[in-house]
Amino acid sequence: MQIAIVLYDRFTALDAVGPYETLGRLPDAETVFVAESTGPVRSDTGALALVADKTLAEVPDPDIVVVPGGPGQFDQMDNETLLGWLRTADRTSAWTTSVCTGSLLLAAAGLLDGRRATSHWLALDFLKQYGAEPTGERVVTDGKYVTAAGVSSGIDMGLTLLGRIAGDEHAQAVQLLTEYDPQPPYDAGSPQKAPQHLVDEFRTDSRFTLA
Amino acid sequence: MQIAIVLYDRFTALDAVGPYETLGRLPDAETVFVAESTGPVRSDTGALALVADKTLAEVPDPDIVVVPGGPGQFDQMDNETLLGWLRTADRTSAWTTSVCTGSLLLAAAGLLDGRRATSHWLALDFLKQYGAEPTGERVVTDGKYVTAAGVSSGIDMGLTLLGRIAGDEHAQAVQLLTEYDPQPPYDAGSPQKAPQHLVDEFRTDSRFTLA
Repeated sequence: MQIAIVLYDRFTALDAVGPYETLGRLPDAETVFVAESTGPVRSDTGALALVADKTLAEVPDPDIVVVPGGPGQFDQMDNETLLGWLRTADRTSAWTTSVCTGSLLLAAAGLLDGRRATSHWLALDFLKQYGAEPTGERVVTDGKYVTAAGVSSGIDMGLTLLGRIAGDEHAQAVQLLTEYDPQPPYDAGSPQKAPQHLVDEFRTDSRFTLA
Repeated sequence: MQIAIVLYDRFTALDAVGPYETLGRLPDAETVFVAESTGPVRSDTGALALVADKTLAEVPDPDIVVVPGGPGQFDQMDNETLLGWLRTADRTSAWTTSVCTGSLLLAAAGLLDGRRATSHWLALDFLKQYGAEPTGERVVTDGKYVTAAGVSSGIDMGLTLLGRIAGDEHAQAVQLLTEYDPQPPYDAGSPQKAPQHLVDEFRTDSRFTLA
């Protein structure tokens, strides 16, 4: 099994590292970070770069595709090099997955037409415009397409898919080893749970408005 | 505020990226990834490298120190360059923190003597041997020392400290933006909750035995 995690300028680091740290613990699998060019790729804050070890062209047919989101996703929506690679890789992939606004890239590549999918809560309307059927679930599986909600949900997606492929016990072992027994100090992780004024502020903040 | 996240060969990526993605969203703060040398630093699986942008020497007095864990922590336990840097940085830091077995490095530097602290569940006995008082909590604060349990707990630690420094509302906003509303598909994230035979297997697996 080969797992390709796609990087591009201003992706969100946890979107990529959540699945890497869970799904990447699949037995006998090779995980490879890919981008248009090899070398460091800066995440959205500018403070962290992850290294792409191979180019997209060097990894044409991974078994699992993982596309993270992030503010930089916008500039990729008409990048035919990336979208074309996604379409080609998807032809032979066993699983095509995304975290956060990575699903908008899958949708822009035409891979989510009429499919149930999810994205960051601020991007669900946008996902609909691209032909998918957004749901409010944290991890959505429709056929071989597995999409996750915002940023941290890639951990839940990774464990879910890991269990599906390698069995519940292996996924539980990875959950135990990564001590994923979440105890957030607040209960504000979704628009349904967070203080309403915070939700409203993000919905009207131009930095987060996907228009 | 300057936040220094320490990298070393074979660290665990999520240990570093969890606090980066939460605590790193502190207003007006600069996050910098540091290591003995600048450039890519490979994480424990070998499949992912994060880039250290500055050397330890170039960042002598950060306000917040974050030390991730990982299997590579062992080889650092007598690395006086790193331990000496930790001692010096700790003299002026506002907060000295760790995730997973990163606390063993703080302890080896003599910073946790007699302090309540935590670590990966497999490393708690070892932490005690180094003079700290291990607890079973996920995030432990003793004075300016904040230690977190295994791997994924760095997210909870980051949000906890973020709330302490920038206020509850800012931390809630970051929780909402990272959509940290965990829904693990299993309930096996701690040795108290996981199937007992998995716990026993890890406790006797030489790859995980810290001896």
